[in-house]
Amino acid sequence: MSETCFELLARDGKARRGRVHTAHGTVETPAFMPVGTAGTVKAMLPESVAATGAEILLGNTYHLMLRPGAERVAALGGLHKFMNWPRPILTDSGGFQVMSLSELRKIGEKGVEFRSHIDGSRHMLTPERSVEIQHLLDADITMCFDECTPFPATPEEAASSMRLSMRWAERCRAAFQKREGYLLFGIMQGGIHENLRRESAESLANIGFDGYAIGGLAIGEGQQEMFRILDFAPAMLPQERPRYLMGVGRPEDILGAVTRGIDMFDCVMPTRAGRTGAAFTRFGELNMRNARHAEDPAPIDPACGCPACRDYSRGYIHHLVKSKEILGSMLLTWHNLHYYQELMAGLRAAIAAGSLADFAAAFGARRAKETP
Amino acid sequence: MSETCFELLARDGKARRGRVHTAHGTVETPAFMPVGTAGTVKAMLPESVAATGAEILLGNTYHLMLRPGAERVAALGGLHKFMNWPRPILTDSGGFQVMSLSELRKIGEKGVEFRSHIDGSRHMLTPERSVEIQHLLDADITMCFDECTPFPATPEEAASSMRLSMRWAERCRAAFQKREGYLLFGIMQGGIHENLRRESAESLANIGFDGYAIGGLAIGEGQQEMFRILDFAPAMLPQERPRYLMGVGRPEDILGAVTRGIDMFDCVMPTRAGRTGAAFTRFGELNMRNARHAEDPAPIDPACGCPACRDYSRGYIHHLVKSKEILGSMLLTWHNLHYYQELMAGLRAAIAAGSLADFAAAFGARRAKETP
Repeated sequence: MSETCFELLARDGKARRGRVHTAHGTVETPAFMPVGTAGTVKAMLPESVAATGAEILLGNTYHLMLRPGAERVAALGGLHKFMNWPRPILTDSGGFQVMSLSELRKIGEKGVEFRSHIDGSRHMLTPERSVEIQHLLDADITMCFDECTPFPATPEEAASSMRLSMRWAERCRAAFQKREGYLLFGIMQGGIHENLRRESAESLANIGFDGYAIGGLAIGEGQQEMFRILDFAPAMLPQERPRYLMGVGRPEDILGAVTRGIDMFDCVMPTRAGRTGAAFTRFGELNMRNARHAEDPAPIDPACGCPACRDYSRGYIHHLVKSKEILGSMLLTWHNLHYYQELMAGLRAAIAAGSLADFAAAFGARRAKETP
Repeated sequence: MSETCFELLARDGKARRGRVHTAHGTVETPAFMPVGTAGTVKAMLPESVAATGAEILLGNTYHLMLRPGAERVAALGGLHKFMNWPRPILTDSGGFQVMSLSELRKIGEKGVEFRSHIDGSRHMLTPERSVEIQHLLDADITMCFDECTPFPATPEEAASSMRLSMRWAERCRAAFQKREGYLLFGIMQGGIHENLRRESAESLANIGFDGYAIGGLAIGEGQQEMFRILDFAPAMLPQERPRYLMGVGRPEDILGAVTRGIDMFDCVMPTRAGRTGAAFTRFGELNMRNARHAEDPAPIDPACGCPACRDYSRGYIHHLVKSKEILGSMLLTWHNLHYYQELMAGLRAAIAAGSLADFAAAFGARRAKETP
């Protein structure tokens, strides 16, 4: 495994300010990765995604293997060239979505057999094939193929599922082709059980990865339970490697997880919410469909520098959302990604300055006020 | 009526190279106006529309009066500010769409009573109210409220419909508030009948307008019949005023109409086609859904300078269209608007150089070749 992929620049309590080095560039952490499901961050030009401050995207193995197909992406020059994103890309393993989206799935020691949700075609996803697909996509960061243990699960189910993921992690490690700047991350499972999380962390560390993800959270257990697990789980992982909390989250989840020692995040929240008329702001979330915005000449947030806030009134954005205009999705997605990246920049600056507690207090105080 | 709204810079046969002056800026003609139906050119940021070379947009009175409402647009600063388009705007009168989109419409001497296609609410559109709405929207160019005579129509129906539109034109003229740089255009009707077209042109000239549109074409009569009418209709209108052919059209229609003396155009073709996977090129139209594009690393048109052609392969755009990704609509709309504006720039240069016949021959020759 690469010895130099992660630089730890500063600490504030458990929180870390760092830098991940990849073949396509550097990522300042704590980092939020916008989700580019099918080779596009929905409703955004990639240069606009970069303009929000994003340095790394997440691509979905499950979606891309089914359409257009990993071999086709490779023939067209890899995912960076295909989607015109020359910066770092992390791909998930397909493990999560094959269980949540596909049909007639059958899980075994070898892997998962399933039918495509698009056309019903049969496919098999194994640790080896998942790593191969991510190689074909040219992902800077490849994720191990795992089973996301469902919530709730009995301790026996959680243990059995986690141990399968650990056996798969070893196969992923064996299948991964080492190249300069290309990283492989293991994924901790173990549900809500501290002993299983420790066993998983030790298994992964024994195999050895460039970075470590915490999987199996943000799947219905609630913020309180997630934070309880994040109070102990990150410290079980090697200190000198980046830690990635998969599928998280809302701004308040990210703040709480950074405080507990997480370095990387991904979530569809800002993009999906943007397409349904929701705007994240310093004061909380706004539903732009709400009639109270219809005649409001003020921007979503006068202190925000994104194009939606710079050039348009709430009244106009309300009109676009009500009229189901594509531009409404474009502007709100841009605004939300801008908000998320500003949040991450604020967290990074606060950790570096040793003022994360003040940052968190100010974050909470603004949200406790009435929405303007 | 303003004496200086139109500068005639050059002629080539019947074709004209000119310039229309409005309160929000100058429009070089022949000009193509992208359609911004509900206060947005669908799937485009307005700065991107400007980047294609567009100098003027068309807004739809019918759509805007129903949602968000003309008074609301006015309260939010007018349509330019509302939609962040500081350049010229022409609004149609609502006459065409009230007949094609609304429900339970009842037409009389006073105007048209109808129900909204959005929520079934009752509305009345008269010449006076149409002009008032366009004033509230702050349109640089207001169009007279008219009845678009359906095709086919008997000569009696066409005459009766046209004469109603001429009485309405007089009422529009009376209702219009003259302000520097704000223009009112009359609309010629008369179906496919030369004598009725002449009668309509004379009625309009007697009232006196800043510019003149030719209405009632491109509604099913076919290109050959439209060109037959355009062989005589433009010359019936005052030479020193701009001439606008409403709702046209495909690139070959525009070329034929410019050759016959038309100065201005609008059409949903480039934007609507972009949202359904069609790309206009020098060689004709491409259906990007076609599987032959799936593995093609070449751009839509290597000679095109738009972002879709600069940064993406046909294979990627095929993937976006097949996956119904918003970015596919964004890129193809941009490409198509770019193509249309390049076509207009080429026509303007050719007329100025006296080489329109060569331009038309080259246009036809490229399209006769097989699509690359």
